[in-house]
Amino acid sequence: MNQAELKAGERLDGLPSQGVSIIQNPDMFSYSLDAVLLAYFANPNKKGRGLTVDLGAGTGAVGLFYAKKVTGEVRLVEIQEDLAKMAARSVALNDMDDRVSVVHSDMKDVFGQVKPGSVDTVLCNPPYFPVKETTKQNEDEHYQIARHEVAIDLPALAQVANKLLKNKGKFFMVHRPERLGDIFAALSDHGLEVKHVQFVYGKADREANMVLVEAIKQGRPGGVKILPPIVAYTDQNDYTKQVEEILYGAPWSMD
Amino acid sequence: MNQAELKAGERLDGLPSQGVSIIQNPDMFSYSLDAVLLAYFANPNKKGRGLTVDLGAGTGAVGLFYAKKVTGEVRLVEIQEDLAKMAARSVALNDMDDRVSVVHSDMKDVFGQVKPGSVDTVLCNPPYFPVKETTKQNEDEHYQIARHEVAIDLPALAQVANKLLKNKGKFFMVHRPERLGDIFAALSDHGLEVKHVQFVYGKADREANMVLVEAIKQGRPGGVKILPPIVAYTDQNDYTKQVEEILYGAPWSMD
Repeated sequence: MNQAELKAGERLDGLPSQGVSIIQNPDMFSYSLDAVLLAYFANPNKKGRGLTVDLGAGTGAVGLFYAKKVTGEVRLVEIQEDLAKMAARSVALNDMDDRVSVVHSDMKDVFGQVKPGSVDTVLCNPPYFPVKETTKQNEDEHYQIARHEVAIDLPALAQVANKLLKNKGKFFMVHRPERLGDIFAALSDHGLEVKHVQFVYGKADREANMVLVEAIKQGRPGGVKILPPIVAYTDQNDYTKQVEEILYGAPWSMD
Repeated sequence: MNQAELKAGERLDGLPSQGVSIIQNPDMFSYSLDAVLLAYFANPNKKGRGLTVDLGAGTGAVGLFYAKKVTGEVRLVEIQEDLAKMAARSVALNDMDDRVSVVHSDMKDVFGQVKPGSVDTVLCNPPYFPVKETTKQNEDEHYQIARHEVAIDLPALAQVANKLLKNKGKFFMVHRPERLGDIFAALSDHGLEVKHVQFVYGKADREANMVLVEAIKQGRPGGVKILPPIVAYTDQNDYTKQVEEILYGAPWSMD
């Protein structure tokens, strides 16, 4: 892409391992390591041939990074029009129009465009913070909707995911560890059985700052597996080999 | 202790860091790393001066290891008479009769001997396995009660712990990660708010095989912290420095 095609305030952020570039505007929203690790963590259903939906796609990072490891269709659902338009431009930029599309919609009203029970895999990097605790009234609206549970909260998200998924369809989410109790409760209340959880620790001697969750619609109860720890940074504040490989190594393969 | 004081089939297992020895009988029950890590993880209330109860104490390992880092009273509650007697002998052996005692009781009926609402800290290394899935009918009874939810299950345990604890009293438990959903549900249903969780990974690239949980009676909802990972073994199958320090290093201090 020609840098000249970028609009004022925009920049292009690439993920070398997947060969994908995303148009970003830090004034509105930027993806971070969370998005990369979610896309990496999500283990496709049906050998990658099924339909995947990225709920709350933002600028499309999760869906586009993930799309590179599957052959099926991916739909990016985003409530904010500015971000949805940027995502659509990133889809074109990466020549993925043939199987990646953007749906500008509140995920709660998406069922006209994505049929209930039609989805094999749902991805979601949702807002992390309950509205009551940390909402800053003067925060930019784009960030507020992306970060705080203004437009969607965990129970509502779980309900949407459940409604979209086929039976035994998979739900993948990245979230903050402090919400773990809420996550288990919301997913369990809405027919999504947690099967795999992976924690991301900023450093080996720090508390976890991210959690990756895989749940299955109508999965058998019991039997959560806690996957090996991901440690993001060394004591010298460099990426660990583990994360460096995810960012700059070989293209991701399906497990 | 004189080895001659051991009965047939018994042996003495020591925890060098704490200077405690436990009488074991592998035919009945032996403590393992789980017990050591639970005692290490449990962060005493009231600067260690409060009353602590170890529910399902077995041969007393958790309670005795923990007792060394506090100055308050510790009561070991054990349903199996054989094990309770061994625990009492270990208390005497370690010269801790002045503040550690053994209560031979089903924990569900312990309220005559330990008053409801009187306990600052509850420790528990409970049976890990649901009865239906893995109970071997021909397994030794001592092991069956210690390992399978024959005598107590998670919801009943949470109810007992809640009833024993003072408000804001702390509950510490070690369990299997696959039960994480059940753990959150049982504790939340019985007024115990999960505040800290720590996963133990057999090796750095393996799934977690233990989880340590701290919950507070009538604690404020939300805000679980996932403490730094504990990795038990190196790639060469030696204990990691982290675990070696816990087993053989300086006596544990309170955080």
